[in-house]
Amino acid sequence: MKIAQVAPLYESVPPQLYGGTERVVSYLTEELVRQGHEVTLFASGDSTTAARLRPGCERALRLQGGALTAPLAHHIYLVERVAQEAPRFDVLHFHLDYLPFSQLRRIDVPAVTTLHGRLDIPDLHPLFREFHDMNLISISQAQRKFMPWASWRATVHHGLPEDLYSAHSAPGKYLAFLGRISPEKRVDRAIEIARRVGLPLRIAAKVDPADQEYFDNEIRKLLDSPGVEFLGEIGEQQKQQFLSNALALLFPIDWPEPFGLVMIEAAACGTPVIAFRSGSVEEVIEDGVSGFIVDSVEQATKAVRNIASISRTQCRAVFEQRFSAHRMAKDYLRAYRQIIAEKKHQPSERGLSLAK
Amino acid sequence: MKIAQVAPLYESVPPQLYGGTERVVSYLTEELVRQGHEVTLFASGDSTTAARLRPGCERALRLQGGALTAPLAHHIYLVERVAQEAPRFDVLHFHLDYLPFSQLRRIDVPAVTTLHGRLDIPDLHPLFREFHDMNLISISQAQRKFMPWASWRATVHHGLPEDLYSAHSAPGKYLAFLGRISPEKRVDRAIEIARRVGLPLRIAAKVDPADQEYFDNEIRKLLDSPGVEFLGEIGEQQKQQFLSNALALLFPIDWPEPFGLVMIEAAACGTPVIAFRSGSVEEVIEDGVSGFIVDSVEQATKAVRNIASISRTQCRAVFEQRFSAHRMAKDYLRAYRQIIAEKKHQPSERGLSLAK
Repeated sequence: MKIAQVAPLYESVPPQLYGGTERVVSYLTEELVRQGHEVTLFASGDSTTAARLRPGCERALRLQGGALTAPLAHHIYLVERVAQEAPRFDVLHFHLDYLPFSQLRRIDVPAVTTLHGRLDIPDLHPLFREFHDMNLISISQAQRKFMPWASWRATVHHGLPEDLYSAHSAPGKYLAFLGRISPEKRVDRAIEIARRVGLPLRIAAKVDPADQEYFDNEIRKLLDSPGVEFLGEIGEQQKQQFLSNALALLFPIDWPEPFGLVMIEAAACGTPVIAFRSGSVEEVIEDGVSGFIVDSVEQATKAVRNIASISRTQCRAVFEQRFSAHRMAKDYLRAYRQIIAEKKHQPSERGLSLAK
Repeated sequence: MKIAQVAPLYESVPPQLYGGTERVVSYLTEELVRQGHEVTLFASGDSTTAARLRPGCERALRLQGGALTAPLAHHIYLVERVAQEAPRFDVLHFHLDYLPFSQLRRIDVPAVTTLHGRLDIPDLHPLFREFHDMNLISISQAQRKFMPWASWRATVHHGLPEDLYSAHSAPGKYLAFLGRISPEKRVDRAIEIARRVGLPLRIAAKVDPADQEYFDNEIRKLLDSPGVEFLGEIGEQQKQQFLSNALALLFPIDWPEPFGLVMIEAAACGTPVIAFRSGSVEEVIEDGVSGFIVDSVEQATKAVRNIASISRTQCRAVFEQRFSAHRMAKDYLRAYRQIIAEKKHQPSERGLSLAK
């Protein structure tokens, strides 16, 4: 199949720093190539891929010196390049939120958009209602909750290459927190849980400029607690060690996180996850199998004390069965085929809606 | 002629607060209606117009409570609405920067974009090079300097309704500064000029959040100087008094300002302008007729001392002759007709470029 993957330009694909969307696009792209598909990746020029690379800009926008003056201009340019090449593809797969919707009404090639972000923003809904006919992929069933009326075609949970991480069978000695420091991620809960069970907590997390004030006012003082170690942001290479040496990953979120890649990274490392019930958690964690789902710090504390009942081999097995890049690619291919087939039966549907 | 005017949604048309673009769109729209054209205004729903109003959102985005979460979503929705109605119009006139360019490639209706902002941002140029075929209107010749290779169709200087302001023949007693407090606007120069000539200075200016630090660190202390009065932001209604009672308007800019509406507002009030040579200044001010063009605080001081040589009646005459909304509409109509005529001779040009 001739497939265009269209990634955001903020980070390279894969990203050199944090960048969940760009990372998932990379895993999907490489797996599709591996399976013999003809894939073109539209992404920043410093991306690395076995697919054909069509650069939307020279370097990842976040790495470009100085202020990010015109990210929108670069992304509109990117969409235009895809639009011009569209007839060469069987399907276009966008990862740019709603940015290409208006152009997609005017391009007669099957197209689909994976929504990677949160949708609980009423301000977005007039746009999504206008474009109710766009083919959308959710990254969890939970993500759809805020827009049940949209044209969801499938839920495709994220997946990782099977060889990206490996599992240790021996349980680690500390609790781990991995991701961002922000009010929704609730690292304060992680610190409280670790304190109650008397285990060390290692925190590997970046602080976005938007969250600096929260970090300074609410979190910094907590990092001095005994047993708490703050490592700052860690790279992909350090994650294997960080996760697989942990007794459990704490995922004490307080928002409807649409997926939560770190949960399947932990599983790939054989590390159980203790997660607060919210967003996609119930779809990703098998309660009592690959970790525990909890509703309070109390319950989380109990879960840590029961962690020996979780088999690390079983965590890895859940990952291999449900969260591999192979499975993700298979799901996407099924969605592509369905969208292409429908397009063939209604060849001028979009053309007609234009003339209305 | 059936004309679509497409305004940004940040402010209503006309704006209740500061909002140069929305104000110019309002003057142009009302003048086109007055001249008998069938105009549709795409703008925020709280806009006021004699044209047919097609709301892109309920209320001006800046007035909506809370953070502005998704202005892009609202503007993409707006472009889509215009695209759907496009065949009803003879010409589409956009004021949304580069936002609709990719859609315009796919809409077979003559379209033109007035660029209201600064273009000295290299980060924008890949986009404008890709869309080198878009019909553009500059608001001054000076604005083109950074992109001489673009498809400029005309320069149309801004204009104001002739009855918006009236001129006093008696000279005022103070120097005036009107606009924003920002490093490019150089209110510090205005304060220094006033100090040197020993005249009072009245400053009517808003402070954007982005400029708050500059205001606090650099400007606040200068406002305590004797003779300096800081009024904050003033509304449209107060401008007549503020400008017409001034001896001269100081316009000591330090950036390539693409137009500078305040210069023609002063002229409409019969008030001469002392402006630093930059951007559009030489196109707007007639040196020695409607004010003085200077290159230094020294020269500005001299200009204030010579201000009696400028006739306030002559300032108003320059405004009426060159900067009325009537003249602006006439210029735009000429550009529209030219673009429509070319389209008729190459009816499928854009359609073909799609198939490439």
